[in-house]
Amino acid sequence: MAAAPVWSVDPRTGKQREQVAVEATAQEVDAAVRAAHDAREALTDRTVRAAFLRSAADELEAARDRLVEAADAETALGPVRLTGELARTCYQLRAFAGIVEEGAFLDVVIDHPDDTATPPVPDLRRYKIPLGVVAVYSASNFPFAFSVAGGDTASALAAGCPVVVKAHPDHPALSELVAKVIRRAAARHQVPDGVLGLVHGFEAGIELIRHPLVAAAGFTGSVRGGRALFDEAAARPVPIPFHGELGSLNPVLVTEAAAAERGEAIGAGLAGSMTLGVGQFCVKPGLVLAPASAAGDALLKSLTDAVSDTDPGVLLDHRMRDNFLAGVTERAQLPDVESPVTAGAGGEHTVSAGFLTVPAERLTREGAYDLLLEECFGPVTVVARYTDETQVRQVLSRLPGNLTATVHVSSEEAAGQGRGAELVRDLTPLAGRVLVNGWPTGVAVAPAQHHGGPYPATTSTSTSVGGTAIERWLRPVVYQGAPEALLPPELRDDNPLGLPRRFNGRLER
Amino acid sequence: MAAAPVWSVDPRTGKQREQVAVEATAQEVDAAVRAAHDAREALTDRTVRAAFLRSAADELEAARDRLVEAADAETALGPVRLTGELARTCYQLRAFAGIVEEGAFLDVVIDHPDDTATPPVPDLRRYKIPLGVVAVYSASNFPFAFSVAGGDTASALAAGCPVVVKAHPDHPALSELVAKVIRRAAARHQVPDGVLGLVHGFEAGIELIRHPLVAAAGFTGSVRGGRALFDEAAARPVPIPFHGELGSLNPVLVTEAAAAERGEAIGAGLAGSMTLGVGQFCVKPGLVLAPASAAGDALLKSLTDAVSDTDPGVLLDHRMRDNFLAGVTERAQLPDVESPVTAGAGGEHTVSAGFLTVPAERLTREGAYDLLLEECFGPVTVVARYTDETQVRQVLSRLPGNLTATVHVSSEEAAGQGRGAELVRDLTPLAGRVLVNGWPTGVAVAPAQHHGGPYPATTSTSTSVGGTAIERWLRPVVYQGAPEALLPPELRDDNPLGLPRRFNGRLER
Repeated sequence: MAAAPVWSVDPRTGKQREQVAVEATAQEVDAAVRAAHDAREALTDRTVRAAFLRSAADELEAARDRLVEAADAETALGPVRLTGELARTCYQLRAFAGIVEEGAFLDVVIDHPDDTATPPVPDLRRYKIPLGVVAVYSASNFPFAFSVAGGDTASALAAGCPVVVKAHPDHPALSELVAKVIRRAAARHQVPDGVLGLVHGFEAGIELIRHPLVAAAGFTGSVRGGRALFDEAAARPVPIPFHGELGSLNPVLVTEAAAAERGEAIGAGLAGSMTLGVGQFCVKPGLVLAPASAAGDALLKSLTDAVSDTDPGVLLDHRMRDNFLAGVTERAQLPDVESPVTAGAGGEHTVSAGFLTVPAERLTREGAYDLLLEECFGPVTVVARYTDETQVRQVLSRLPGNLTATVHVSSEEAAGQGRGAELVRDLTPLAGRVLVNGWPTGVAVAPAQHHGGPYPATTSTSTSVGGTAIERWLRPVVYQGAPEALLPPELRDDNPLGLPRRFNGRLER
Repeated sequence: MAAAPVWSVDPRTGKQREQVAVEATAQEVDAAVRAAHDAREALTDRTVRAAFLRSAADELEAARDRLVEAADAETALGPVRLTGELARTCYQLRAFAGIVEEGAFLDVVIDHPDDTATPPVPDLRRYKIPLGVVAVYSASNFPFAFSVAGGDTASALAAGCPVVVKAHPDHPALSELVAKVIRRAAARHQVPDGVLGLVHGFEAGIELIRHPLVAAAGFTGSVRGGRALFDEAAARPVPIPFHGELGSLNPVLVTEAAAAERGEAIGAGLAGSMTLGVGQFCVKPGLVLAPASAAGDALLKSLTDAVSDTDPGVLLDHRMRDNFLAGVTERAQLPDVESPVTAGAGGEHTVSAGFLTVPAERLTREGAYDLLLEECFGPVTVVARYTDETQVRQVLSRLPGNLTATVHVSSEEAAGQGRGAELVRDLTPLAGRVLVNGWPTGVAVAPAQHHGGPYPATTSTSTSVGGTAIERWLRPVVYQGAPEALLPPELRDDNPLGLPRRFNGRLER
């Protein structure tokens, strides 16, 4: 059987641009994984890892114009957004270099012997070591930040794990380009090319998750695809951690007082958030609980105006466009669902933004309206109008896990009067990030960031953004009774590397 | 169908002592989980959790004589060992109280807004919250330390998670007794009984792992049982973390120089470690690589003498005794396998310790000898005699994941001469705990402890012993843009609870 070609496609026309590669065979996947496995040694030195990550950022910046052009040709996300995303990606690589240098992620804990304990404590010295080769499944909607050089790759390399990326079929040419740039950075530090493998093809992705030398995986994508790979990871003879970000509705609750205070601004803000990037963010607000009051009407009026003013946009590929149009139609046909602004086909290749409304009461029981509690990728949201707090609680109790949950409160509620604190508490079980008076789109790269949440938002308790993303690719090991001469420098009493640690129970920083 | 009775059995006679309970129905499992779920609120306050854990230790100590007697009647482990194990269990409960009070496990990270970052960083405040109800599957071989009040329960309660324990059928009466003691401690702090549920029966264990309100599970037991439950956890509509400790061979490598320096002492030490607790420890050394030299012969001579001198012992139940006898026989029948001391039936209810030898060369390739690389629960070990370092490397490369790996080196090797450091490095990929010149039996409760390892040692990268065991039952949540008045005290700038944290990138302790 001839190898299947991998085409680069222009989403603005649906036309094939060029053949980039062919889909990887099982043998080619095996070769990529083995090359990555052989590159582990080169990542042992944390100094090398940090320098490599900084060089990767430098090389990406040096190639910026070409990269942004290549990304735009395959994603239609536009040079402004893509330039920003590339900057974010470089910032992230450098942030992980800093994390590697600081070394807190090693979680060093040293206990000297204690014969008075029950049972007696011997000399114990624990830190974390890299798991091995990490498989990374790229997302379509962030061709830089959640793809070949994105957060999964950056955090895995920072942890000391080589990576094999399964390229997203929506930007194969860019994926090849970015991989070359990263390998150029690796070469500057004598790290072999194998440290970043790249494979194309659906079957190659399955081979990858099944490979005995793959030790963990990161994934960003759909519930269906992510769950299938999660199941593969769990069914292996030796199961491996699968950190998947699968899907999220990202509920927003607007209190009556907030709507009364600034309904117009909230409506306009919502329009901006749900149409940003043509609604193709995993943190797009997909369900908004707004009061069925005059203040709620004002919010909707403002939302209607702003969404109506939004230009049509091009989705990442035509399959997404088909799914979006079908999803909107199916939702709009439910009784009592209205479309103040109808989302739909813009031109032949574009879509226009819109939103739906529904009485919140319809969402309080299992049934046909459960469709409205599923993510619909693209520029559409559902506004559920509630008449009382019981309805709000009932709807919230029926939601699946989310990446984010948002509440808009009034100034008084924000100051601690009324139910502000209670609402924040109520939203906490639903999501990994809880926002007050903000919008979930825009996931800052910062030490405190957590981009994850109860299933199906993520398949683990981990994050794919922020400093703690490195924790996914490590496992602890403790040395018992090892003489200093046999210990790695990280675990020596005199702390030659100046690492933060817990020493005989006491935190040292 | 009548409910199946749950009997307490005396392992010294194989006779039923009393009917303790009946196996829990699906409805009873559901009731236990719901009661646990309802008890979450009572564990919100960390002060209450710490006080509850200390009271649990106090109450267990107050009931010591009765508990040790009950444990001995069902396990035959003897009052000395059981008194020590109970002390360890109480120490562990108090250690987790200290961990709860310190609050480092909350992993507080606070980032103030930074408009200069790409993208800009909003106000972000992250900490960890309890996952919810934890299912705990008790072990047979530690009726206190890995059972109803053991490490899984202690760490889950410390994290703020109520627990439903699936009792081990080898000590159902003790399980009921311990659960009552813990509930008495809970009552002292107005924590409802439901905080610690207890169910009996194989089917009840399956119902438990499938229950929608169970958020995570801890398990200590066999590869077969653990994998079955792991598969159930992964196959749920909403998969949950399953932290299972399944099985371990615990390889020991003795260098030629170590054998030459103190072969006799090593042989005697090995005999003590492999026969401790009648060989019923998950960290029992099950495979020893010893040189096929005169020094190795001296080691074996000493091992032979010491094992021959060991009194027969009673295993935890008669199924284990049958498995042990069958496992030893099957291994001893392999060609070139010798039995310098034959393990086998002692009396009608006891077993005697023994060990096998095999040329290491036989273990370097896949085949019938792979049986020797599987754990055999009970007082037996396999000594593989090697003729060169290549054989050692080949055997090590064929081992599954382990809880521990041990190397015995000479004084010169310990001082850094020769291959000491290299051997420690070679053993690190194999296990979660690497020992030098010690024995793996005896798992100290200490901040640095790590009791886990590559699969099948554990099904996750976590530990079930030591301070970091609490991490298994938590998930992060970050608050974005939340005003101080709506934030929990843990996340306020002024740090009213005095928590260690990362504040604007800097570690504060």
